[in-house]
Amino acid sequence: MNRPVINTYFLPDLIPAGATMAPTAVVIDVLRATTTAAAALAAGAAGLIPVETVEEARALAEQLTPRPLLGGERQGLPISGFDLGNSPASYDDRVRDRWIVFTTTNGTRAIHACRGCRRVLLAAFVNLSVVVDRLVGLDRVDIVCAGTGGRIPLEDVLCAGALLDLWTDGEPDNWQLDDGSLLALDAWQRHARHWTGRTWLVDRLRLSQGGRNLTEIGQEADIELAATIDAHPVVPEWHWPANRIVRAD
Amino acid sequence: MNRPVINTYFLPDLIPAGATMAPTAVVIDVLRATTTAAAALAAGAAGLIPVETVEEARALAEQLTPRPLLGGERQGLPISGFDLGNSPASYDDRVRDRWIVFTTTNGTRAIHACRGCRRVLLAAFVNLSVVVDRLVGLDRVDIVCAGTGGRIPLEDVLCAGALLDLWTDGEPDNWQLDDGSLLALDAWQRHARHWTGRTWLVDRLRLSQGGRNLTEIGQEADIELAATIDAHPVVPEWHWPANRIVRAD
Repeated sequence: MNRPVINTYFLPDLIPAGATMAPTAVVIDVLRATTTAAAALAAGAAGLIPVETVEEARALAEQLTPRPLLGGERQGLPISGFDLGNSPASYDDRVRDRWIVFTTTNGTRAIHACRGCRRVLLAAFVNLSVVVDRLVGLDRVDIVCAGTGGRIPLEDVLCAGALLDLWTDGEPDNWQLDDGSLLALDAWQRHARHWTGRTWLVDRLRLSQGGRNLTEIGQEADIELAATIDAHPVVPEWHWPANRIVRAD
Repeated sequence: MNRPVINTYFLPDLIPAGATMAPTAVVIDVLRATTTAAAALAAGAAGLIPVETVEEARALAEQLTPRPLLGGERQGLPISGFDLGNSPASYDDRVRDRWIVFTTTNGTRAIHACRGCRRVLLAAFVNLSVVVDRLVGLDRVDIVCAGTGGRIPLEDVLCAGALLDLWTDGEPDNWQLDDGSLLALDAWQRHARHWTGRTWLVDRLRLSQGGRNLTEIGQEADIELAATIDAHPVVPEWHWPANRIVRAD
C-alpha cells in the first residue's frame, strides 16, 4: 500500500508557483475564518460566499435574491453596514437558512489559493474530528494555513498538527510527511502528549500574533471559542467556480 | 527589565519587505552551509567569502592574491574545477590558513538577506553553545533559516528551536517570542525534553527534505556530522560590505 502524501503550507504564498496541488486541500484559519464558517453552518446557515474585498461583498449582496447577510472583518473589526462581524459567537439563530457573503483578510485568500483542487475542506479546532473523518483513505492531501499578514501563524500550524496527529493516529511513518507537516506535528505533540484539558491550547493561542491582535481589540473571548475542539462538528466545503461554502455531502 | 525580542524567519523570503532588522541576526543552514563554515574555521581556515553564483566565485578567485580555495555545491554536488564541495568532512587540514570562496544554493542567499544587521552570526548544531554565549544579554535578535528551494526547512527550524531552548533556559516567558520562535521551540522540545542522545536528531534530519536530498546523492554521512552538537565550537561572523566570514572576535 502506498503511504499517503501530505504537504503542509504554513502560508498560501509558500505554495510553489505552478505546483500541481493535491486533489483534496484543507484550509485552516483558526482565528477566525474557518472557525466562523463551521460555527455559521452549525447554526443552520445555508452557506457562505467568500470574497476578498469589502466592495465585492457589497456589490454581490445587491445582486443576490433573497438578499444575503454581509459578514466579515477588517483588522479584526466589524465593517460598517455589515450584518455580522467575524466572531464565531455572532453566528447564531440570525443566520439560520440565510446565505452570508463573507470577507476576511487572510482566510478568503487562503481558500482561493486552492482553486486547483477538486475538493477544498475548511478546518479548525472546532470541527477537527469530522474533517479528519473525511480524510481517511485519501492518497494525497495539501494543508494550507491562512496566516496573519504574511507571518507564519502559530494557531493554524498547531491546528494542522492536531489534524495530522488525529489522522496518523500514532503511526506517522505510514504517511509521507513533508517538512511542514513534520514540524506541525512536532509542535502540536510537544504539548498534547500530556494533554488533560484545553487550557494549554488557549494559552498558546493567546501567545500567537493572531491571539494578541484579538486581545488588543477586546475580542479575547473568541480565542476560547476557537480552542474548543469539536464544538461545531460540521465540515464546510468550498465549491469552485460557484464560490460557495456549504456543508460537505 | 525589558524582555528580549526574538523573531524567527523560516525562510529569508519571509522577512517583510522594508522591515527594520534586529541589530544582530543568526543565520542557520544546517545542511550544510553554516555547518561547513563552522567546520572550516575550526579546521583553521582564514575565512570564507560567500557568493551566490559559480561564475562570481570563479571570477573572484582569479582576482585575489594569494589565490583562495573554491568551495561549494550545486544541487548538493561538487562543482567542476572547485577545490572543495560542501561536505563539512572535506574541510580538513587542506584549508588551514587559506581563504575559501564559497558558493551554496540557499545559505549564501540567507546570509546576504541580513545586510541590514550590524552583526550576522552563523549557527548550526555543531556550534550551538558558543553562538548562544554570544546572544546572552542582547535585546533583540532575528533568526533566519536558509531553507531548501523555498520550502520550510525542518532541520533549520529544529536548530533554531535548540538555540532558543538553550538561550531561554526554561524561562521562555521572559522573552518576547514571535509565532515562528514559539513553533521552533515547540518542535525542538517535543523530542529534546526526553533527550538521552542524538539518535532522534539524526533520524529527524534524515526525514527532512534536505536530509533526503543528501541521502539520494550518497552523502548521508554528512547528516550525522551536522547533528553532532558542539562538534565545532567556533562562531563564524559575516562582515558586510567586506563580505567576509571569519571567527567572531
